[in-house]
Amino acid sequence: MTTRPDPVQPADAEALTLARDLLQSARHAALAVIDPETGTPGISRIAFGLDPQGCPLTLVSALAAHRAALAAQPAAAVMVGEPGEKGDPLTHPRLMIRVMAEFVDRSAPDHAAIRDHWLTDHPKAKLYVDFADFSFVRLRPVSALLNGGFARAYRLSPEDLVPAPN
Amino acid sequence: MTTRPDPVQPADAEALTLARDLLQSARHAALAVIDPETGTPGISRIAFGLDPQGCPLTLVSALAAHRAALAAQPAAAVMVGEPGEKGDPLTHPRLMIRVMAEFVDRSAPDHAAIRDHWLTDHPKAKLYVDFADFSFVRLRPVSALLNGGFARAYRLSPEDLVPAPN
Repeated sequence: MTTRPDPVQPADAEALTLARDLLQSARHAALAVIDPETGTPGISRIAFGLDPQGCPLTLVSALAAHRAALAAQPAAAVMVGEPGEKGDPLTHPRLMIRVMAEFVDRSAPDHAAIRDHWLTDHPKAKLYVDFADFSFVRLRPVSALLNGGFARAYRLSPEDLVPAPN
Repeated sequence: MTTRPDPVQPADAEALTLARDLLQSARHAALAVIDPETGTPGISRIAFGLDPQGCPLTLVSALAAHRAALAAQPAAAVMVGEPGEKGDPLTHPRLMIRVMAEFVDRSAPDHAAIRDHWLTDHPKAKLYVDFADFSFVRLRPVSALLNGGFARAYRLSPEDLVPAPN
């Protein structure tokens, strides 16, 4: 019984560009997981980047609580697009993505390419990227919502988030 | 079978001060919920403040997806402490709080005090705070984790988060 119009619109060209810009420029994100001990939501800040194919990616320590959560329950959600110092933070655009986490095995054939690509965007990570207790985790999009400010919400598909080939 | 030392320490005086400062200065936050349709995590940016007793509080629109999620499943998590423009965002302190959401009924005796207190910290909200489809929701802390940067994590209780009386 829906009595209101759906406030979320399909993405237009401007929304697609904004969503891809947010993804490509983000170096950190907020991650929502389900805590395996309590079954309730957990939240944390993560390092964020893209793999060479444009799939969202993070690098996590074995000490982080969200690492255990993602290993136990790969369904998660991630938000990029930090408000600036000025203006109303709720009008600043942000992209919220439902994802499935996929750990990248260190012996996987594409691990070296992922590592090199990550270090291009996160040069300080060279201090710890090769430690045995750090792992890359792909955050493969299931669906996404772009909020460009009040009354400007757009639904996006996983394909919408992939950068156009050069 | 724990083979590592627990990386999380009990909070000391410095950690308590930092946690309370993050809470008091935050005007927005990231919120993790469980999506009632899929049972998987959802994430969004919310307006954030404290009620007159120092309890975390948000003001939500009925159009927001997280409003329906909180109504269906009040267990949630909130993160405050935005990284600045400079420096490594993962070394910027942030406070992650597991909460239970409690909607504040507009006819509740303390609604007027909550509304007035909110408008002091969020003056622009006077444009919509009295709209029928906006609700205050207390985010009552269950437990909290302060991350002050690499290897500086502290566990806090709900009592730790309440500001000291003047």
